[in-house]
Amino acid sequence: MRNIKLTIEYDGTRYIGWQIQQKRPKEIGKENTIQGIIEKALEKILHENIRISGAGRTDAGVHAKGQVANFHTSSKIATNSLQKAINALLPQDIVITKAQQASPNFDARFSAKTKIYHYQILNRRFDSVFERLYCFRVPYTLNVNLMRKEARVLKGRHDFKSFQASDKIEKNSIRTIRSISVKKYGPLIKIDVEADGFLYNMVRNIVGTLIDIGRGRLIPGSMAKILKAKDRRQAGPAAPARGLCLLKVKY
Amino acid sequence: MRNIKLTIEYDGTRYIGWQIQQKRPKEIGKENTIQGIIEKALEKILHENIRISGAGRTDAGVHAKGQVANFHTSSKIATNSLQKAINALLPQDIVITKAQQASPNFDARFSAKTKIYHYQILNRRFDSVFERLYCFRVPYTLNVNLMRKEARVLKGRHDFKSFQASDKIEKNSIRTIRSISVKKYGPLIKIDVEADGFLYNMVRNIVGTLIDIGRGRLIPGSMAKILKAKDRRQAGPAAPARGLCLLKVKY
Repeated sequence: MRNIKLTIEYDGTRYIGWQIQQKRPKEIGKENTIQGIIEKALEKILHENIRISGAGRTDAGVHAKGQVANFHTSSKIATNSLQKAINALLPQDIVITKAQQASPNFDARFSAKTKIYHYQILNRRFDSVFERLYCFRVPYTLNVNLMRKEARVLKGRHDFKSFQASDKIEKNSIRTIRSISVKKYGPLIKIDVEADGFLYNMVRNIVGTLIDIGRGRLIPGSMAKILKAKDRRQAGPAAPARGLCLLKVKY
Repeated sequence: MRNIKLTIEYDGTRYIGWQIQQKRPKEIGKENTIQGIIEKALEKILHENIRISGAGRTDAGVHAKGQVANFHTSSKIATNSLQKAINALLPQDIVITKAQQASPNFDARFSAKTKIYHYQILNRRFDSVFERLYCFRVPYTLNVNLMRKEARVLKGRHDFKSFQASDKIEKNSIRTIRSISVKKYGPLIKIDVEADGFLYNMVRNIVGTLIDIGRGRLIPGSMAKILKAKDRRQAGPAAPARGLCLLKVKY
């Protein structure tokens, strides 16, 4: 069996997420999840049952520029022919940007060292024609320098329980944020977070908290206090999915 | 009468262009041209007949990040209220990014000193999810260094007759290109052209010629020869509209 690694770009706007919903009838997930659509295309090409494993199980409406997945196949098809064949079957909002043969024990999810998520805020009173599907618009003035300063507190190994979705608790909520940056490009504020792992909704909860800090609803010093509290209720609301993008997975 | 200057961003994908088609019944242009849609919104807000004048009459499918237009009105509405009111009426693919009062003799088209157009080529074998509507995909290898070198020939004051659409001839085809750049960002090749004026299809014909040079269909030195020939048939085909964007108008 060969192990094939795919790098994938998608616009998550019209999907219920990366992952096939296990509780639902299988065929539903084949139509409205990224994983399901790619599996269906692969099965059509390879005439095998295919189950792909993705590095980041992105939520409904979340995008990706560098999602990675892998699957095993007995097919001998050349990876560039495979890439061409899948792209011909996929809808326009999903594209395979790379297909490579990987070592037998490579697993897109468990072999990942770090992942980088990107969040985009549009800080102005009106929408952007080109970014409207890929950002969260915040009309009130944000103090970006303060947001950057408060974000730094999160760098390093911490218990991120305060930023974990309250309905999806993991026993171990300790993660390591390798880097977090807050940059301003005209009306766009771009936040990048690189970590060894992410709790459910972690980036969106961090961004929501940074927005509350930037607009003055939370006072300077709040981030350290919230992190220490290990209490989801102390942090800000989750920022919407459409501003979030899985940028890169590092192995 | 006040003179109002608007800065406009639009996705040209579903429009037949900026300008109301004079030969067609007026109401058709009000629905499927950018100018027509903005005029209709203004008339609804101001209860006057409004005719706006745009700096660049972009073609069907061409986009803009910095189109500029102006119009005269007897209304005393504050420019920020006006901006808000227009944006509330416009479809999601047209946004007014600025509304300012201008001096009485300001004319978006005739007062313009230079305009900058941007063209995006995606140089790979498969589409980009996020750029597919805003670029021309070229699957064969392009020599970007050669394209950049040949593009330099166009800088300065020249007769650009070779790059003028053959069905829309202007008597005077002399224009001055202030700068032309060809830059590569991963698979994207971005071409910026700043000039005091543009002939019909000039940027698209220049880009089409650069692509022919980059892929080796035209030999090095061709650009100088084509420019000198003053003959449209010597240049390459027009590159498609969707890669083109009116980036900025300078006054």
